[in-house]
Amino acid sequence: MSDLPTPQVYLVGAGPGDPELLTLRAAKLLQHADVVVYDNLVSDGVLALISPTAERIFVGKRAGHHTLPQEEINQVLVRLWQEAPRRIVRLKGGDPLIFGRGGEEAWALAAAGVPFEIVPGITAACGMAASNALPLTHRGVAQACLFVTGHLQNGKLNLDWPALARPKQTVVFYMGVSTLPELCAQLIAHGRAPETPAAIIQAATTPQERRIVGSLATLPAIAKAAEVHPPALIVVGEVIRVAQGLEAMRPFASAAPKETNPSHTTQTADKVSR
Amino acid sequence: MSDLPTPQVYLVGAGPGDPELLTLRAAKLLQHADVVVYDNLVSDGVLALISPTAERIFVGKRAGHHTLPQEEINQVLVRLWQEAPRRIVRLKGGDPLIFGRGGEEAWALAAAGVPFEIVPGITAACGMAASNALPLTHRGVAQACLFVTGHLQNGKLNLDWPALARPKQTVVFYMGVSTLPELCAQLIAHGRAPETPAAIIQAATTPQERRIVGSLATLPAIAKAAEVHPPALIVVGEVIRVAQGLEAMRPFASAAPKETNPSHTTQTADKVSR
Repeated sequence: MSDLPTPQVYLVGAGPGDPELLTLRAAKLLQHADVVVYDNLVSDGVLALISPTAERIFVGKRAGHHTLPQEEINQVLVRLWQEAPRRIVRLKGGDPLIFGRGGEEAWALAAAGVPFEIVPGITAACGMAASNALPLTHRGVAQACLFVTGHLQNGKLNLDWPALARPKQTVVFYMGVSTLPELCAQLIAHGRAPETPAAIIQAATTPQERRIVGSLATLPAIAKAAEVHPPALIVVGEVIRVAQGLEAMRPFASAAPKETNPSHTTQTADKVSR
Repeated sequence: MSDLPTPQVYLVGAGPGDPELLTLRAAKLLQHADVVVYDNLVSDGVLALISPTAERIFVGKRAGHHTLPQEEINQVLVRLWQEAPRRIVRLKGGDPLIFGRGGEEAWALAAAGVPFEIVPGITAACGMAASNALPLTHRGVAQACLFVTGHLQNGKLNLDWPALARPKQTVVFYMGVSTLPELCAQLIAHGRAPETPAAIIQAATTPQERRIVGSLATLPAIAKAAEVHPPALIVVGEVIRVAQGLEAMRPFASAAPKETNPSHTTQTADKVSR
């Protein structure tokens, strides 16, 4: 573990935002990188850990310009290696293999004969869960958790609504601020009770974190009034009541400022602890 | 971030096994802990990072003895704080809030007025995905991933089979070596094709990692013949073909020794990359 990392391409999870949530492996790779390729989903705190001698290549969205198409990012990685084999780190927000298109980048690298390694990161849902004391599974409340993207694909939300509307699970939508009204309406249309707790968490694990809580029926209007902006996660499930119960009992202020909707009933401890 | 951690209880994710996959925050807490409470799910490599002056309390299974019941572990944490407020780290394999019962420990702490913080960890599924180059979501192949436990509850598998059998998603069962035959049979009975790829990965991210690949129809017999032991994850979904395609193309040996079943057809690149 003390040797220098092998020259190759590293697809590295940058975690949810807080630089202390990088893995030891990711931090070491940033210290020894020759080139780092990154986008808007990587926080400034994480970027600060990159070796000052590393070349930095930004492939995200700039004012007035779109993000590079995925195929072009793939080709940037292949070309960097072909120009000169070295330690090339592709930093990706969260985990590379959960909505990170890491599989597509890996495929392009493998197809071009470029050696690579994948380093996992704390996925956004886990970062959010920890900073909000919101268990993703909880005995008797949620026996499964499901991660899905609320992003439009080809201009529409083409999701498996019957699966998402099942009870006794926690659903986390990655992105979806703009589609929140449709997400909530579809879940209700497919059988989830309108009073099912739902929350939107903006910029989880960063000092700008905000949490807005409501129900499937009320969250779209509350979130609109609160002017929630991306990046944000949407959580649907009874575990939100566990988080609210915990917050009500905690004998101290939590680290991040929270904004909860007082009109949403907090259950008593007895009802939610099991 | 340079100051010492506040005295309180920390529910800390230890990640999937490889100590380099600890977060920077977790490693720092282990260095400054006064007491560390841990169980069998935490690897020796992670334990080696604990401060030599910290008191260690094992609450897992020993030969001939069962793990402490969850309620007793909760009370150990409360009692340690009440004896003397200090930095008490409860290390949990993977992430504390995905099948880690972290929510229950947090509830017991909050109810007793004990201050706590939750630190996320790389959940087992993400560690396994990275070390196997197995994307949990992949455009056109899997648009969601679902984590569930294959552990018996009150002696039976009481899972939402219709939800688990939905197409276009990756299902990861945490534990379930002993229930593998029933898991596969139930998924087939609820509509998943018998030829759906399925894999079992033992000890992911550690030097002992093994991967056995088959289909829902064949995996139980293959895994039995291969004598797979816990801890292991079971993965079901077409993304396994992406991992196999990647492995076939990779121009180098991957870090961990792999064991795949050659009788399972590896798809060509064209069929699986989108």
